[in-house]
Amino acid sequence: MKNRGLLIIVSAPSGCGKGTILSEVLKDNAYYFSVSATTRSPREGEVDGVNYYFISKDEFEDIIEKGGMLEYATYCGNYYGTPKKQVEEMLERGKNVLLEIEVQGAMQMKKLCPDGVFIFIKPPSISELKRRLKKRATESDEVIDARVAQAKEEMKYANKYDYVIVNDVLEKAVEDFKAIIRAEELSTKRIKVDTKEAE
Amino acid sequence: MKNRGLLIIVSAPSGCGKGTILSEVLKDNAYYFSVSATTRSPREGEVDGVNYYFISKDEFEDIIEKGGMLEYATYCGNYYGTPKKQVEEMLERGKNVLLEIEVQGAMQMKKLCPDGVFIFIKPPSISELKRRLKKRATESDEVIDARVAQAKEEMKYANKYDYVIVNDVLEKAVEDFKAIIRAEELSTKRIKVDTKEAE
Repeated sequence: MKNRGLLIIVSAPSGCGKGTILSEVLKDNAYYFSVSATTRSPREGEVDGVNYYFISKDEFEDIIEKGGMLEYATYCGNYYGTPKKQVEEMLERGKNVLLEIEVQGAMQMKKLCPDGVFIFIKPPSISELKRRLKKRATESDEVIDARVAQAKEEMKYANKYDYVIVNDVLEKAVEDFKAIIRAEELSTKRIKVDTKEAE
Repeated sequence: MKNRGLLIIVSAPSGCGKGTILSEVLKDNAYYFSVSATTRSPREGEVDGVNYYFISKDEFEDIIEKGGMLEYATYCGNYYGTPKKQVEEMLERGKNVLLEIEVQGAMQMKKLCPDGVFIFIKPPSISELKRRLKKRATESDEVIDARVAQAKEEMKYANKYDYVIVNDVLEKAVEDFKAIIRAEELSTKRIKVDTKEAE
């Protein structure tokens, strides 16, 4: 029998390199990235089942009613949520399921799934985060300031996660991520060794 | 300021390859192997401070009296124990301290140092353990049977440790060991992120 996979909840302020870390981790076939469902319309280039599952408001509310959303929120009049079914299926198959979720959603999840592995990725410092956001040069100073302010807010929650990874050097952060998952797989919290082992 | 090191307690039945795993891990300078103290006489080839600290019964009892032994036991009329002082110094310096201890001692330590990282190394199976012990061909069948019986006893405690590593492939076991330590270093149980970070 295959062991049940781990539910891994990841949060990080924008500009922390979370996307890059996750895409490195997802190269490993043992991981499955949970795609959120939303009722908003797809933007150009967005693919159903890749960026989001694009479903109707009726469908979404039907899933909520049946208790089928692990967590959900509304934003600008649209629903966003994590369908329970696919997550459950993948965990059963022994895959580690990655959920990328913002801080508030993660705190909701912590109550629902205390067994989850909660990881917060933070920048080496606020000044470094500013530098990175400025380097992108795709946003105005105003937007950058707003992002930095939001990052500061989010970082207040870091200690409520199980682990904190500082993304200073990408390769190290990826290794840290994998080390956490491996350690959790070896933890007796999760896996009980059969002590009456037959020969 | 350097973070305090981790106290790592390792137990394993004989024939599990514990020695090989630990010597691989100890190649890393961030680890310090705690040398036990004993009142028995050094055997040929044994070096004071490497295999053991060889001290007199009076000295040993003096240390016990002053509360200076982390744990100790008597065996064949001699004392064996872990002097607290060196362990404390190394932890303060930020080194991860490795204690190799048998099951009973580890259970004592768990009460004293709940912050310790308790790792149990087990063979893939009892039959594989037998095969390995026989392959060594240094011991009689009787001794091997006694070792196997003892291993079975010790393995009953596996789930009382924080982690269980199965030593099937050495390189993997060493990686698992390092992953556990890294994850513990990133755990918010140990390290609190300064959420009021200045810029």
